[in-house]
This record gives sequence, structure tokens and C-alpha cells, in this order.
Amino acid sequence: MPILPDAVQNLTLAFERLPGIGPKTASRLTFYLLRAPEEISRSLAEALLALKSDTGLCQVCFNITRAGQEVCDICASPQRDEGVICVVEEPLDVLALERTAGYFGRYHVLHGVLSPIEGIGPDDLKIKPLLERVKSGKVREVILATNPSMEGDATALYIQQQLANSKVRITRLARGLPVGGDLEYADQNTLLRALAGRQELGS
Amino acid sequence: MPILPDAVQNLTLAFERLPGIGPKTASRLTFYLLRAPEEISRSLAEALLALKSDTGLCQVCFNITRAGQEVCDICASPQRDEGVICVVEEPLDVLALERTAGYFGRYHVLHGVLSPIEGIGPDDLKIKPLLERVKSGKVREVILATNPSMEGDATALYIQQQLANSKVRITRLARGLPVGGDLEYADQNTLLRALAGRQELGS
Repeated sequence: MPILPDAVQNLTLAFERLPGIGPKTASRLTFYLLRAPEEISRSLAEALLALKSDTGLCQVCFNITRAGQEVCDICASPQRDEGVICVVEEPLDVLALERTAGYFGRYHVLHGVLSPIEGIGPDDLKIKPLLERVKSGKVREVILATNPSMEGDATALYIQQQLANSKVRITRLARGLPVGGDLEYADQNTLLRALAGRQELGS
Repeated sequence: MPILPDAVQNLTLAFERLPGIGPKTASRLTFYLLRAPEEISRSLAEALLALKSDTGLCQVCFNITRAGQEVCDICASPQRDEGVICVVEEPLDVLALERTAGYFGRYHVLHGVLSPIEGIGPDDLKIKPLLERVKSGKVREVILATNPSMEGDATALYIQQQLANSKVRITRLARGLPVGGDLEYADQNTLLRALAGRQELGS
């Protein structure tokens, strides 16, 4: 359609490249910005341009840090137990766990999961640095908190095998019914896991 | 949470200002861009910056045009019937009607609807230029294609009253069951309208 000016089409296409944004949402966003004060587009553009230049990865746990900051706040904090490492797939998972305000150990971000189909092997993830952290001797427990999916499970299993000879405790997040969930809507697998993992009341 | 670098928080907040994007989607987009090639963020940023500077409004119908283009392609086209004007709320509505490939008249974009609550009166919309276009004498029909909502109906009614003394035909888009829809799921008002507007079979 040659009806729309290039500037409108370019922005719509750029929005469409983002995950979860389809053609309709993309054009709705574009037309919203056409009407909105220019400052809204400008601040979004500036934040986008600053994103890569102003961030880096922690050289210990590979979580996102400010640019130039070698070690992230969590790894640098003496209040966080360096004996426990929670292994997650993505930086977003760190955020989710931090929101619980119930975890006081450190993290290790793999930046993905093993996926033979997509050609992602152990060397494409931050697995080696994890094994080295464990070897350092200060670690008592590794919590494998990859997603409860096929790939997440496979990745956890792989890391478990790599750590088999070390003496650290290796755990995985519990499976079961989500809090506030409904038995009736739980899928078979979740229900099976919840049954298998049932716990003594009052224990 | 001081865990995230400013650059990540700024972009998340900038995304959150867009309509339909909540905190969760905003951080998902930000973390996607952190991982994605820098080119994706950069092209989005450039498209955002170009949006306002590269677009303008058609001086006849007030649809979006390229910057510096006084009259839009539709208003300039001799193939489009200048005797019929379809009045819509937003430029996006023009797009929706053009996609039908079944309308061959011209448009008029109001850029909003009357809304006493939000303090939007007739002078805040492009109503006066519409009345002038109609007065010019070439117009035979005005199709009021504002949304089938309270405000859309009120705006259509207002324009109808303003045009009461002119001899042009004034129409409104038909209400009824959406094609592919399901009687069972139609709301009361739509069903009432569909009943009231029922048509002779074979007519």
C-alpha cells in the first residue's frame, strides 16, 4: 500500500520485529506515537540507543551490569551467600527471583539453554565459567533454576552430569501446583509432579 | 530495585509509556533487545526519530502524508470520487477502509471524537474544514464512519446537525452482526441493531 508515508511504514516494520508484536499492534503503536508528544518517541529512541553502549555483563555471573562495571552488585555484595549459586537461563529470571525477596545466594546466567535443533551446544552457553566457579571450592550448593521445559530440563541434566564428581549439593526448583492455581486446570504433567513430590503435613 | 543498570530501566520505562504495554511486556522487550543484534534497536530508534520529522498532514483530508507533501495521494488521485467523503476518527481508520479495497471516494480524518469529559469540543477536531469541503459544492454524500461507540455516535450526530441545511446525502456505516461472528456471542445492542436493520432476502 503506497498510502502511508515511508516514515510510518518503517516504524511499523521496526515494531513488528519485536517479539509478541504483530502487524496490528505495530501500527497501533506507530499511530499512537504520531499523535503523542514528540518527547515520547524521542525518549524511547534515546533509551534504545543507550541500551547496548551503557550495559555489559558481570564477569562472574554474566548478569547484566552497567557498562564498565566488571562485577555486578550481587556478586560484589558481602551480604549475598557465595556458597549458593542459582543457575538461570536469562537475566530476566534473576529479576523474577530477586522479586521474591527470599533468595540470598548468588546467580549464574547461562544466556540460553541447550537446543540441538537450534544448534546451541554447551559451548554457546556460560557453562564452563560455572564449572570453574564451582571448582573454586567456596560453593556448597548449585540450584538449577532453568525453566521447567524440555530444554530447561536437558540443560539442568547436562550441568548435573558435569558436576557429578564435585561434592556440591545440586538441587532443582520444586515442581507442583502453582500457588493460587486450580487443581482442575492443572495439566497432567504438573499434577503428576505434584503427586510425586507430595510432602508430609506438619513436616 | 538497584539490581538493573539505568539503561535497562530507562528503556523498560519508555516501553511502558506506550499503550497496551505493561511492565511485564516492557521488560520482556528490553531483555530481548539486550540479546538481539544491536541493529534491531538502532533501526527502531532511527524510525522513531524520523517519525515526526518525515510526516505531515494532508491539507485537504488531514490524513498522514510525507513531510512537505501538501495533499495526500488519495486527495490528489483523479480516480477517487471527490463527490463522496468518508469521515473517520483516526488515520488508522483510513487504512482499515483502504484494506477493504471496496471504497473509491475520499476521506476526512477528524483526529479524535467529541468528548466533553476529556474537554474535547468541535474546535479541537477537524470538523470546520469538513464543513467547508462540503460547502464547496462538489460533495454528494458524506459517510460518517466514526466508531460505533458513544463518542463516535455523538460526533456523527453533531456533524449531521451541522450539515442539516446542506443537500448532501448523509449516511452512517451499517450496524449488525460481524461477518464470521456468532449469534450466541453477539451483545444485546448489536443483536438489537441487527434485528432493526434486517434486510429482505433477495433484495
